[in-house]
Amino acid sequence: MNPHFKIEDTSIINEILDKAEYGTLALSVDNTPYAVPLNFVRIGETIYFHGALKNRKMKMLSKNQKASFSVVENHSLIDSDFSSNDGLACPATQFFKSISIDGSVEMVEDKKEKIVMFEALMKKLQPKGGYRPFNDEMYNKALKTTAVYRLVADDISCKFKFGQHLNEERFEMIIRSLEARGTQIDKATIKIMREQRGL
Amino acid sequence: MNPHFKIEDTSIINEILDKAEYGTLALSVDNTPYAVPLNFVRIGETIYFHGALKNRKMKMLSKNQKASFSVVENHSLIDSDFSSNDGLACPATQFFKSISIDGSVEMVEDKKEKIVMFEALMKKLQPKGGYRPFNDEMYNKALKTTAVYRLVADDISCKFKFGQHLNEERFEMIIRSLEARGTQIDKATIKIMREQRGL
Repeated sequence: MNPHFKIEDTSIINEILDKAEYGTLALSVDNTPYAVPLNFVRIGETIYFHGALKNRKMKMLSKNQKASFSVVENHSLIDSDFSSNDGLACPATQFFKSISIDGSVEMVEDKKEKIVMFEALMKKLQPKGGYRPFNDEMYNKALKTTAVYRLVADDISCKFKFGQHLNEERFEMIIRSLEARGTQIDKATIKIMREQRGL
Repeated sequence: MNPHFKIEDTSIINEILDKAEYGTLALSVDNTPYAVPLNFVRIGETIYFHGALKNRKMKMLSKNQKASFSVVENHSLIDSDFSSNDGLACPATQFFKSISIDGSVEMVEDKKEKIVMFEALMKKLQPKGGYRPFNDEMYNKALKTTAVYRLVADDISCKFKFGQHLNEERFEMIIRSLEARGTQIDKATIKIMREQRGL
């Protein structure tokens, strides 16, 4: 990875994970990979998912627990003429934040851990609240019939691409181009570009 | 897959692929999966990517060409009280469109096919144009030093989750709740819910 793009600050990584509505989990059996998008919640350094007890994912996990999980926060498309006047298409790119987690998936059997997971997931995706707490016995059946699993991370890497590697002239040219286009995403992108540059 | 959720109309599938800025490719070597997000373009039934000639992805592809590709178009988070009055968190969900493609990745060596790919990719991600056509000899070096690869699909599946399986009472309750919350995403979600229901 281009060293300019590497992010090691855990609080920044956690912020992305806590904001993302979904990530994509890659599993593999007999060297046949499978990519599946999932809502998730982070608790500490662990990513939790839930789902049906029986499906392709569960069948694969019973054979191979190794997994890779990808989360993307997409930002502005950078047109080829945003940073160059030579008329070539090559500089066209997209700015983004991405996280890649390699690890192993384990089933969560403990009822208390399942409850902690559902509480955290609901707090993330339905922050307004408005539901019974999960220790209510009305959840007993649902807790038994829903699979909960955790991705235990061996390695977490985070990449930001926001023009950090560009010289000042190209960097400022992109800022001006984004300002001129001026969408909401462009405005947010400019803010992150400046932060990453320490401006 | 819940049969209510399955979409087989190729034009609908293509529309999602042509709108998506990125998808997540899953690869696997020695049963260790790897999920990597990528910009892409669809030409016919084939998905094309490009990238560096040497990286983790390329190393993996030289050992195993099998791949799975996932594209998500995320829509409204559906709060637990949008479709139920019993106070349980269980109905909380997210509506989405998703596509899953299983297949094999092949390197593209032919210069003409590479050019067709870059033309289509730029047309998708930079529709305003404003760059030299790719048959310009100024691209010769870039065309040689950039890897282009195609995912040849063995299976394409598409899933829509927009409450198609719900009874009319719950379905209408969600529509009213989304109208009340009224974000841009909620408005778009309502439109798709009604289309899927044939309303």
